Amino acid sequence: MSFDPVAVASAAADASGAVIRAHFRARIDVDTKADASPVTLADRGAEAAIRRVLAERCPDHAVIGEEMGGKAGGRFTWVIDPIDGTRAFITGRPVFATLIALLEHGRPVLGLIDQPVLGERWLAHEGVLRFSGPHGGAPGTRAVASLAEAELSCTSPEMFTEAQFGGFRRLAGACRRVTYGGDAYGYGLLALGQIDVVAEADLKPWDWSALAPVIEAAGGAMTDWRGAELTLESDGTALALGNPALLGDAVALLGG
Amino acid sequence: MSFDPVAVASAAADASGAVIRAHFRARIDVDTKADASPVTLADRGAEAAIRRVLAERCPDHAVIGEEMGGKAGGRFTWVIDPIDGTRAFITGRPVFATLIALLEHGRPVLGLIDQPVLGERWLAHEGVLRFSGPHGGAPGTRAVASLAEAELSCTSPEMFTEAQFGGFRRLAGACRRVTYGGDAYGYGLLALGQIDVVAEADLKPWDWSALAPVIEAAGGAMTDWRGAELTLESDGTALALGNPALLGDAVALLGG
Repeated sequence: MSFDPVAVASAAADASGAVIRAHFRARIDVDTKADASPVTLADRGAEAAIRRVLAERCPDHAVIGEEMGGKAGGRFTWVIDPIDGTRAFITGRPVFATLIALLEHGRPVLGLIDQPVLGERWLAHEGVLRFSGPHGGAPGTRAVASLAEAELSCTSPEMFTEAQFGGFRRLAGACRRVTYGGDAYGYGLLALGQIDVVAEADLKPWDWSALAPVIEAAGGAMTDWRGAELTLESDGTALALGNPALLGDAVALLGG
Repeated sequence: MSFDPVAVASAAADASGAVIRAHFRARIDVDTKADASPVTLADRGAEAAIRRVLAERCPDHAVIGEEMGGKAGGRFTWVIDPIDGTRAFITGRPVFATLIALLEHGRPVLGLIDQPVLGERWLAHEGVLRFSGPHGGAPGTRAVASLAEAELSCTSPEMFTEAQFGGFRRLAGACRRVTYGGDAYGYGLLALGQIDVVAEADLKPWDWSALAPVIEAAGGAMTDWRGAELTLESDGTALALGNPALLGDAVALLGG
């Protein structure tokens, strides 16, 4: 590589964070049009800021973004979600995240999770996770011995089909406790050993591409609900575990 | 009053916040006993810190706390919940809250919501809400014209009985969007005009006593699901609205 992936991703997240902070908790005028809402301005502005950094530093790389589309390129493709956790952003909760991933030949080699309001950032590259932020936490998953001890997290029961919700409830029944709300931030907390399992569905490549390298560098595993590696062709299910040894148990429950 | 309620409540929240921050995102040793978990230490330590402040400054007031019990007294009773949002605390999300209320003859006259990790504090007294914090937001609810424009929030679908969940789903169907997760922090965001409706159940007096003064001072309304004032004899349902004019519509949907 003739570029520094960590420096590029960090500069991109710095640029998007400045845009997002300017719109966080902005008052929505009742007459505001949908295409000028704070979340729309923040989403589009943040993705444009990231694309400007990538275009300047890596002009020959492909870019796929949640807001502006794009498709995978040759060797390197950046995959970005400017605001993962739109509902959290809209309701003023600082637990949404900006996601930036670098794929090499279709597989994530770098993952960045950024919470620009709190100043928290997870950055995984070459199997090493760096975490920085003012509110504590250290990289590394927690290896609970069984699902019975595990904290399970999921953004919302609304993300599941009926059949998937059956699987999720079986898993939830085997875990110690379920917490709703989370989006990408939940995976970040799993990488800090605060949560043990995340099971979700309806995820797009820009949702999970940045998360898998973070989870794996922290000592965990991230797959689909069958336990298979996530790829651009995956079915949208995602399962993250702090202790990879629990993968078989979790997959069996989710599958029914 | 020969005491300054705002100064007493503020000093109590300062004391509890120091205890809570020391335990936030602490690693749980797998061998840790339940009675020595970070959340237990934080919960009990924070309530004890608040009680020390109250005992020193208002020795003749009654105190009811989520952790250590107590019952209502004569004219003044403090009602405290050291950590509302235990699941958020346990999973490392800085969206739990410390709640402190002062009741005079059974009715809340002061309400304080404190997020000690983020340094955000809502304090309502004599109909005036003060909010301070580093991440933006200003006191005052948002008066959406109808439920169809409203952001609805609720901590978890697990808090409802089956009949209550039916009512909640009717309300959710009439609103623009539902966000799960929240606890007391969601009511704080409603008081900043970021959320429009919160409907919950299974609340105890220490859950809502601090919230009602904050919501009302911000221009909203907080009642039970029948639209009646919350009292120590309430049934545990709670409905908060940024726009009090929507109370009839919401109550009709919740009631079936």
